[in-house]
Amino acid sequence: MQIPREKWKNNFSEWFDNVIFQAEIYDYGRYPIKGMGVWMPYGFKIRQNVINIIRKFLDETGHEEVLFPLLIPEYLLRKESEHIKGFEGEVYWVTKGGEEDLDIRLALRPTSEVAITYMESLWIKSYKELPKKYYQIVSIFRYETKATRPMIRLREVTTFKEAHTLHVSYEDAERQVKEAIEIYKKIFDTLGIPYILSERPEWDRFAGAEHTYAFDTLMPDGRALQIGTVHHLGQHFTKALDYKIQKADGSLDYPYQTSYGISDRVIAVSIAVNGDDHGPLLNPIIAPIKVVIIPIPAKTEEDNKRVDNYCKEIQEKLSSAGISAVVDSDKEKTPGEKFYYWEMKGVPLRIEIGLREVNNETITIKRRDTLEAKIVKKDELIKTVTELLSSLSEDLKKKAWDFFNSRIFYTNDVNEAKKILENRGGIIEVPWCGDNSCGLKIEEELNARVLGYPIDAKKTSDPCVICKKPSTNVLRVAKTY
Amino acid sequence: MQIPREKWKNNFSEWFDNVIFQAEIYDYGRYPIKGMGVWMPYGFKIRQNVINIIRKFLDETGHEEVLFPLLIPEYLLRKESEHIKGFEGEVYWVTKGGEEDLDIRLALRPTSEVAITYMESLWIKSYKELPKKYYQIVSIFRYETKATRPMIRLREVTTFKEAHTLHVSYEDAERQVKEAIEIYKKIFDTLGIPYILSERPEWDRFAGAEHTYAFDTLMPDGRALQIGTVHHLGQHFTKALDYKIQKADGSLDYPYQTSYGISDRVIAVSIAVNGDDHGPLLNPIIAPIKVVIIPIPAKTEEDNKRVDNYCKEIQEKLSSAGISAVVDSDKEKTPGEKFYYWEMKGVPLRIEIGLREVNNETITIKRRDTLEAKIVKKDELIKTVTELLSSLSEDLKKKAWDFFNSRIFYTNDVNEAKKILENRGGIIEVPWCGDNSCGLKIEEELNARVLGYPIDAKKTSDPCVICKKPSTNVLRVAKTY
Repeated sequence: MQIPREKWKNNFSEWFDNVIFQAEIYDYGRYPIKGMGVWMPYGFKIRQNVINIIRKFLDETGHEEVLFPLLIPEYLLRKESEHIKGFEGEVYWVTKGGEEDLDIRLALRPTSEVAITYMESLWIKSYKELPKKYYQIVSIFRYETKATRPMIRLREVTTFKEAHTLHVSYEDAERQVKEAIEIYKKIFDTLGIPYILSERPEWDRFAGAEHTYAFDTLMPDGRALQIGTVHHLGQHFTKALDYKIQKADGSLDYPYQTSYGISDRVIAVSIAVNGDDHGPLLNPIIAPIKVVIIPIPAKTEEDNKRVDNYCKEIQEKLSSAGISAVVDSDKEKTPGEKFYYWEMKGVPLRIEIGLREVNNETITIKRRDTLEAKIVKKDELIKTVTELLSSLSEDLKKKAWDFFNSRIFYTNDVNEAKKILENRGGIIEVPWCGDNSCGLKIEEELNARVLGYPIDAKKTSDPCVICKKPSTNVLRVAKTY
Repeated sequence: MQIPREKWKNNFSEWFDNVIFQAEIYDYGRYPIKGMGVWMPYGFKIRQNVINIIRKFLDETGHEEVLFPLLIPEYLLRKESEHIKGFEGEVYWVTKGGEEDLDIRLALRPTSEVAITYMESLWIKSYKELPKKYYQIVSIFRYETKATRPMIRLREVTTFKEAHTLHVSYEDAERQVKEAIEIYKKIFDTLGIPYILSERPEWDRFAGAEHTYAFDTLMPDGRALQIGTVHHLGQHFTKALDYKIQKADGSLDYPYQTSYGISDRVIAVSIAVNGDDHGPLLNPIIAPIKVVIIPIPAKTEEDNKRVDNYCKEIQEKLSSAGISAVVDSDKEKTPGEKFYYWEMKGVPLRIEIGLREVNNETITIKRRDTLEAKIVKKDELIKTVTELLSSLSEDLKKKAWDFFNSRIFYTNDVNEAKKILENRGGIIEVPWCGDNSCGLKIEEELNARVLGYPIDAKKTSDPCVICKKPSTNVLRVAKTY
């Protein structure tokens, strides 16, 4: 069930849904609840590799992992009124235990600001213990009314990494926002995901935040997808929970907070940005299997045995160098069928071993993207494979960025903007006076969504695309997921 | 807030609750929902170490990790009637999304047999793909009406490892039951947890199982605690879901299943079995920090600097050997305060470094249990620490087993059994004819719970302790958590 490259450019969703199903990554649409899917073993390993990368960058910057209960009592969620308003329509409520009606409705967490702030108020009493950085990787739930999409818009988001930090001052929280942005850049860079960072406009901030910064990427069909957000929460939640700490001068004050999250979408994008007619092409950094070894049948039983032994030897050499490799020794399948199968799994490198390789003590290695064959001596195996995996990673990243950069446009003309969005997609920057009303007008005119504006204002001499007053920055607009 | 050893023997719960709170392992009773607690950073690391051990033994025996949605639709949960009956009173129900009433009530999973069987029926069609072994580590929910206890009886069990396997025949499922039992033994042995394996009596089987085998341990107060169960599910769930596979002879039949689970209790017991007046004593195998290094202040600034540098050098040597170690260089605390703090954290080894150690190029190491000092040359650091950690692990395990074995009794006298249970606790074996009615009578007479009977029948010439007919096996009875 391949979808030709030419076709899937305009049917990216169809391609993606197919790929994650056929590669046995994520079974979606068959579990009997809308918007909830199953991570299958192969997908679970990809997910685990992505999580490990996220954990690494958070741990090494002093973030401490915790695990909070899934349920939040209604009265607690209601403490911050802006916050609950932002989520009210999307909360799943537990109302019964057994056949009893519960006294207090319990929310499946949509996010954990209030729950974590509540416990922080018991744990941390003094400026001396600040800053404090917690995170957890958990399921969150949103009763989405929009069309759901596997890994991208779910009712159960199974891989929500939410960080929550606590600070003595507004400025220290601001510094944390910058740290968070740097951490997210490192995560996306490691995964080879291109991104653009914008401050979200006032009307699109996180419910309860003073500022929201967001990373967006582009899917192959030119639509933008939010892949990470960083919020300066100010004292909103600590005030709502009447939580004060002792400051250096002995006075009491509400501490400041930030929170930042990334989700399954990072995994989705890691898969989505690289791929072709043959299916996904997993970046070696997240591929559960980096090399598949396929024996090419020889003419005699004895020669086949020699081929098999040689395959095994190569596999063991790779494994002991920490490079996960499998031999596909299924006798009932042709090499062609195996090629197809492992391409569909997105394995980055393929080694083909026939009698010639055994006799010459060589190996033939092919990259999943170019299918270019490289023949090297056996003792160069580890060096070559390591180099190929690394250059494949780099090439994928470069290709993804090239595509991304080719889809960022500037125009001061509404009609041109409209045309670009319709024909090529991407992100369009237009000059903007800074007024919300003009921002909302832009969304309306372009039938697209404002992503926000660059943190360091991009000045242009063009006037605002709507009101023609002088512009103060550009506004970024895109069709979004 | 120490609890003297003599006292806590009879107040084990109080000791345990205190220890996990003061060591900042698990904050329980303060989160505003009964029966749900928070894994704090230190506890989260212990939990992670335990999870890694569980994963290792499952992965190396071909179990594949997956992740299923948290919610199960009511009609699916009702497919197996015995099963739902077993859980009906304990299920949390989601009935609302936003302000809408849901058409179908959704259960927070109490366990995942039906959900997993449902997806298996889509994934696996032929005997060729069997046996298949899945597992996931997830939160499960039970609206407990009994008194809840941290990590032991919770409404949200946050660390439920549930394995689900699929087989072509009854016998192959039986073989899997044996494999599961061996895996669990390895997990408990690695963690140093003593156990006894019994087949649960008919009236105490898992809802939907043909046989339930259970591991029980003893808490320091002599009460038994179930720490793992293994179920032969027969065809109960596959029949309920009308799920057939193709067999080797071409015919269709319902496949057979097993499931087996362990939970947070394994973590609780790992902490509970080892400890004293000073708090917990973490088995090095699960301790997030294996060695704490405490500088002993010298008289001059310069000497203190030498001590600090030496501490750092030792810490780095340990870290690069993969032994997690921290230096507590807080200048505002006395060594005594630090000793107390790190004992409360259960760190297995303490290194004290003063000027004498610096001058002699030695280190003084103390085991958390004996506090016996060992002075060794610096170049013997890694060797000595490794040996001490390993002998500490072994000693803890031996001590735990000695205690456990000293609390297993046999008697053919009901009054004596009653007396033992009241005075010393433990597990009592009594001769039994094999009739359920006598088993239930034993529970009543002893005001205790039947754990079950040995898989390989223990014959005794004594008659059944209730009906005096010839006995066929012994029945194990204990006061339980």
